[in-house]
Amino acid sequence: MVLVDIGNTNFHVLENGKMYDLKKIKPFNDEVFYISVNDEKEKELLKYNPHAKNLKDFVKFDTSYTGLGIDRVMACKAIYDGVVVDAGSAITLDIMQNGVHLGGVIFPGISALKEAYAKISPKLDVNFGEIDFKKLPQNTTEAVTYGGLGSIIEMIKSLKKDKTLYLTGGDGKFLGRYLDGVYIKDLVFRGMLETIKQDLRS
Amino acid sequence: MVLVDIGNTNFHVLENGKMYDLKKIKPFNDEVFYISVNDEKEKELLKYNPHAKNLKDFVKFDTSYTGLGIDRVMACKAIYDGVVVDAGSAITLDIMQNGVHLGGVIFPGISALKEAYAKISPKLDVNFGEIDFKKLPQNTTEAVTYGGLGSIIEMIKSLKKDKTLYLTGGDGKFLGRYLDGVYIKDLVFRGMLETIKQDLRS
Repeated sequence: MVLVDIGNTNFHVLENGKMYDLKKIKPFNDEVFYISVNDEKEKELLKYNPHAKNLKDFVKFDTSYTGLGIDRVMACKAIYDGVVVDAGSAITLDIMQNGVHLGGVIFPGISALKEAYAKISPKLDVNFGEIDFKKLPQNTTEAVTYGGLGSIIEMIKSLKKDKTLYLTGGDGKFLGRYLDGVYIKDLVFRGMLETIKQDLRS
Repeated sequence: MVLVDIGNTNFHVLENGKMYDLKKIKPFNDEVFYISVNDEKEKELLKYNPHAKNLKDFVKFDTSYTGLGIDRVMACKAIYDGVVVDAGSAITLDIMQNGVHLGGVIFPGISALKEAYAKISPKLDVNFGEIDFKKLPQNTTEAVTYGGLGSIIEMIKSLKKDKTLYLTGGDGKFLGRYLDGVYIKDLVFRGMLETIKQDLRS
């Protein structure tokens, strides 16, 4: 069994317990399950793997949220209770309670945020540093880190409350420096496996 | 007396109690006081008004913050105690206590934030709507408003505490819809007048 998570730039693959990325897709000599946020790339996958199954067609997910991305659905399927933060080009936060999705929030991603500051003024083109919320910023780097990254961190904390926080995505580890959470690299794949077990083969 | 606040795109002028913007500067038949964040535009002003006085050379301001923009200094000079939020291309927040500047924070401006989302994905190119912090977002517009604008609003509230909030700048009125504050359009000019009264002519 091969799992493929089709993103906007890469095919993320889980094969024989190994995760790797592909720029161009290939034919797999195995059963293929996938999710996709990119129509073009989905067509490529199906060209080489015509029997690949889109898990979107099978997944059962309890939410009132309209337009929830399938990658967010899968990350949430991997947990039963807690808060999922997927830090990629955008940072998405989703809250699960007893297997029910309660809602979600979308922040700009770390690179997007950094670029936004740089575009306002070269003076604001700084690298995010440490944050000490007990001390008011005393220079530009501190002020930008506190206002940009700090606002996101504080909002995540206030939404997390006493729940367990699960971090994933390219900047998940980076965010983990500022938050009390557990980083799970393959959270989306875990949700895909859960979907196959619970919703497809039950 | 004419006051000129030189920004990155315009000359903001206060003349005979009237505020107006100029793309190109002109000679004034009066005493001119100015501040500037743009060296090129400052040269233009001085070409037509060689006796104009830069208030940066006279202002007394008590702070430990390094690199505080002169426009932020002036807005703070206009108040003795409280929180100043100047919402322009960036949103700056500064805290004053008994005439002393305690520190400040820099958020991306409203347009910069909106552009950052749009650049991540066309799906995230939404207009900020209302925010109900008691209800979790249930669609993309709510999720982006809550995550982007909401994080900034919450951080401003948490820094404001029980102080008076003074809003200024192009998006000051817009932010005022979400915050308990007083909007003062000419806050920077008020600080410039205060500087002339207190620091230049005392």
